[in-house]
Amino acid sequence: MPSDNKPFSEPKPWTECARDLVNVAMGRRPADMVVRNGKWVNVHSGEVIPATDLAIIDGRFAYCGPDASHCIGDGTRVVDARGRYLVPGLCDGHMHVESGMLTVTEFVRAVAPHGTTSMFVDPHEIANVLGLDGVRMMHDEAMGMPTNVFVQMPSCVPSAPGLEHAGASLGPQEIAEAMAWPNIIGLGEVMNFPGVAANDQTMAGAIEATVKAGKTVGGHYASPDLGLPFHGYVAGGPADDHEGTRAEDAIARVRQGMKAMLRLGSAWYDVAEQIKAVTEQGIDPRNFILCTDDSHSGTLVRDGHMDRVVRHAIGQGLSPICAIQMATVNTAQHFGLERELGSIAPGRRADFLIVSDLAALAIDEVYARGVQLARDGKLTADIPVWDYPDTAKNTVRLSREIAASDFAIAAPAGTAEVDVRVIGVIENQAPTRALEARLPVSGGIVGMDRVNDVCQIALVERHRGTGAVSNAFVSGFGYTQDCAMASTVAHDSHHMIVVGTNRNDMAIAANRLGEIGGGVVMISKGEELALIEMPIAGLMSDERAEIVAAKADVLGAAMREMGCTLNNAYMQHSLLALVVIPELRISDVGLVDVRTFEKVDVFV
Amino acid sequence: MPSDNKPFSEPKPWTECARDLVNVAMGRRPADMVVRNGKWVNVHSGEVIPATDLAIIDGRFAYCGPDASHCIGDGTRVVDARGRYLVPGLCDGHMHVESGMLTVTEFVRAVAPHGTTSMFVDPHEIANVLGLDGVRMMHDEAMGMPTNVFVQMPSCVPSAPGLEHAGASLGPQEIAEAMAWPNIIGLGEVMNFPGVAANDQTMAGAIEATVKAGKTVGGHYASPDLGLPFHGYVAGGPADDHEGTRAEDAIARVRQGMKAMLRLGSAWYDVAEQIKAVTEQGIDPRNFILCTDDSHSGTLVRDGHMDRVVRHAIGQGLSPICAIQMATVNTAQHFGLERELGSIAPGRRADFLIVSDLAALAIDEVYARGVQLARDGKLTADIPVWDYPDTAKNTVRLSREIAASDFAIAAPAGTAEVDVRVIGVIENQAPTRALEARLPVSGGIVGMDRVNDVCQIALVERHRGTGAVSNAFVSGFGYTQDCAMASTVAHDSHHMIVVGTNRNDMAIAANRLGEIGGGVVMISKGEELALIEMPIAGLMSDERAEIVAAKADVLGAAMREMGCTLNNAYMQHSLLALVVIPELRISDVGLVDVRTFEKVDVFV
Repeated sequence: MPSDNKPFSEPKPWTECARDLVNVAMGRRPADMVVRNGKWVNVHSGEVIPATDLAIIDGRFAYCGPDASHCIGDGTRVVDARGRYLVPGLCDGHMHVESGMLTVTEFVRAVAPHGTTSMFVDPHEIANVLGLDGVRMMHDEAMGMPTNVFVQMPSCVPSAPGLEHAGASLGPQEIAEAMAWPNIIGLGEVMNFPGVAANDQTMAGAIEATVKAGKTVGGHYASPDLGLPFHGYVAGGPADDHEGTRAEDAIARVRQGMKAMLRLGSAWYDVAEQIKAVTEQGIDPRNFILCTDDSHSGTLVRDGHMDRVVRHAIGQGLSPICAIQMATVNTAQHFGLERELGSIAPGRRADFLIVSDLAALAIDEVYARGVQLARDGKLTADIPVWDYPDTAKNTVRLSREIAASDFAIAAPAGTAEVDVRVIGVIENQAPTRALEARLPVSGGIVGMDRVNDVCQIALVERHRGTGAVSNAFVSGFGYTQDCAMASTVAHDSHHMIVVGTNRNDMAIAANRLGEIGGGVVMISKGEELALIEMPIAGLMSDERAEIVAAKADVLGAAMREMGCTLNNAYMQHSLLALVVIPELRISDVGLVDVRTFEKVDVFV
Repeated sequence: MPSDNKPFSEPKPWTECARDLVNVAMGRRPADMVVRNGKWVNVHSGEVIPATDLAIIDGRFAYCGPDASHCIGDGTRVVDARGRYLVPGLCDGHMHVESGMLTVTEFVRAVAPHGTTSMFVDPHEIANVLGLDGVRMMHDEAMGMPTNVFVQMPSCVPSAPGLEHAGASLGPQEIAEAMAWPNIIGLGEVMNFPGVAANDQTMAGAIEATVKAGKTVGGHYASPDLGLPFHGYVAGGPADDHEGTRAEDAIARVRQGMKAMLRLGSAWYDVAEQIKAVTEQGIDPRNFILCTDDSHSGTLVRDGHMDRVVRHAIGQGLSPICAIQMATVNTAQHFGLERELGSIAPGRRADFLIVSDLAALAIDEVYARGVQLARDGKLTADIPVWDYPDTAKNTVRLSREIAASDFAIAAPAGTAEVDVRVIGVIENQAPTRALEARLPVSGGIVGMDRVNDVCQIALVERHRGTGAVSNAFVSGFGYTQDCAMASTVAHDSHHMIVVGTNRNDMAIAANRLGEIGGGVVMISKGEELALIEMPIAGLMSDERAEIVAAKADVLGAAMREMGCTLNNAYMQHSLLALVVIPELRISDVGLVDVRTFEKVDVFV
């Protein structure tokens, strides 16, 4: 449903507005908008300043002070803040739009009412499917938003070279190319932390290209080891990190001159412990930044976005202004945007919230670049649908009908039972366990063991239409019924993961996703219990967050109906091809032991 | 005395060091230097961390942590800090080298023992004499320093277009050109604050060129008016300001998103009042930066430089670490250099001090880029003399011998007495008073009135050899003897100011400066009482700070001997052509009333 509306245009550069900003500040020409009588939450000085007026022109603040009467003319829209707080628009310092299964546009629609006016997004998932073209699509979509959506260039595509074949790969050359794009703000989380400490050419090259472009290198040091590997990683250049979980992690990062990014996502709860570095240990808060990393649509619809994070941080004992600094000026400063956004001050983009209760962060109205986007939690701006090109759709290339027999695992000749390796899902954790099980053989084919919760997992190649299917076993979902769930969200290479107790259902599920261009589907005895269509790269819906969240609820109910009681069960499903986190995973090359980074056989 | 030594080379870019930094951090190759057992003054976290080791390679920190044993190899120099403090090298956020009457090299020699390892210098004075070429000379000299000397491109040359003719003029085109030079860090103090608020084309163009280059616009809002003119100035783009004097000035600047630069120079004492914004009013200190602006050689030799400012700030009640932040990481961050310098952290230039008492800032050793520069207050590094080209010398172009008759002021025909305008010097203030006096006429020439402290002032054109001499009267120096003092430091256009009670001595003084290429000289009855040679642009000596300071002491004594008891008397002399500060000044176009910005006649 493409809208007739034109997308929002990029803000005029400050240099093109400067003369008008001065003219408005001096009262020589009227402002576009004046906000009167607010309490200025000043993230520079750390004060709340009563009785403040703001004057805005060209989407930027021209005047912030006690009286903007002189900026009001015939065409000026005047908003009475009635003594409420004027808070800078919130910034999400690191996040993945794809985690919401949404387009950038739908994500922005969902989070604008929650006060998020700037996002630093790493389109790592689409990059694994569509490479540089995919990054460019989201980059261009981002530029048409009414809020500020900056793009971090994905750094690790594929995540595990040699252990998987993603839809694309990005090297230093592609990264250098992207650094020249207008909306690229830096390098996305450098996840290959051993590679950085080992001076891996690809990692060092990617970082070098970013630093040469004067941009910010995002970090991702996913290890509790604060010894040499950490120091080697820091020396390699990442300027921030969001993988800390303990106060000591945050302190270590800040001491080394990095920004400690503290995340509260749908499944990340890393603020409470780490913020004690500030609240209990007195570490200077200026180097702390709040972010979400990954938010599901349901979280956005029900719990919020950066407003939720700021509220949570205040709940942990931070002063409201300190928490707000961590989601505004600290973020802007980190990305070299302090003169551009992240505060209510002259010259900055006029991104601000009218808030009736500061500690509760009760957001009455949201403005970005001087345009009202939301009021009382409802979107008021018309943000047109963004049309993705056909190349972004039809990315599920199966090349042939998948049959139940594709999932048949042939036993070694003459065996009646076999010992097999089993991927063991651990509830609420990303790592898996490398388990083993003894399974029966019937007609030369290995059977499953529903009683002991061992069913099949398959990775169906979907980028190049090779027709390849890797088969293995998984335990932990607890399916008690005939069923199969397939997903083209399959981190990080995003082939298709099919988990099932029944090979017919597995084939039906796989073919269904092939037919609709990707998404996630649950089939039981040939019947479709739940479906979330994700036609864009097989990763993103083109529907609203509310609709996606409702479909995800149906999916969750279907999984429970089939016997799965895991928390975040779908997320667990989608992570089983993540061949960078131990112990056992599946990829298009087969079963991978991530402890040794080696392909292993299904049979022990 | 050019030295055989080569100047220091610029530090290798981080991108060229990154692999070695990682290798040292990981213990795969030895560091150039390891500092053991220090107390890490961590300006990021705000902590002092005991028992810290630092490993350095290529002039950058590779490892900062509890144990650098693994970084030590055969060639590694190991320094035992013996539990003393490791403090980042100090940064001077805004200053003029010329104020010391020194070259960049001699300034660096003088301040390195005081712990200054980064300076942000605005070569405004040489720009008024030699234009872009002069800026380039100091820029290139700066690049050869062992410390970090960044150049702010002068923004207001001449200071008062139309009211004076400086040796050169710089417009937006020259500024855009300079922004591409490697060591230009931003735009120097935008002094024409009414011009910014009026959208003056030259000012707006200069700021635009700077912002387009992604660099920092320095401010200079020299007015106590925090109303509309201030808001108009802020809207025009300056990102810092060092002209505040009251706590409310600092607070106003920080609230508007500017950095409040607090200066303690030889004649500026603006820290004590303004720092109360932090110590008494709780304003967030992160947006405060310490600087000197102007330091005379005597101050450098006797009192120090940034160490003096930091000590003073601590003396005003700041915690040592907060004061140090204001002279290190805050400054670096402001200029976009946070990843490059201003802290002891991996990747940064290894600029640090070994300090035995933190609150007293007792500096035992000074290192820049891993090289020891000073120990126990004495320079230990050999910093070679920098040879200025001939075009920088011989800038005093008089084209002819100046005669006593050049200073004869002809009275209107037939008068025996005349009423004249007199520039009134005010002790310890930059503004002058517009006075009047009745003077006798003898032989058609106006006489002076030594009893009432009215003597002559002349501005001798010296840039283009026009032979022009502007004559007028001045009061306030209190000269009681036959004497004349001439100076080619004559802010901001730097012609030659001659003040005298005797026209013969005035001519001798002027010719003496013509002969030696500039400086300052005091003549009495034909005898030379004091001389400071400043052959470089007539602004800077090529001698050591100690020698210049000693000569300045002789000059001060000579002025006192002649009857002048003013504080900072030489500075008062050199400011009398500053046609931007009220009330009455002299320029090459004549007597100027700076209240109305109009040329006025000597006779009332």
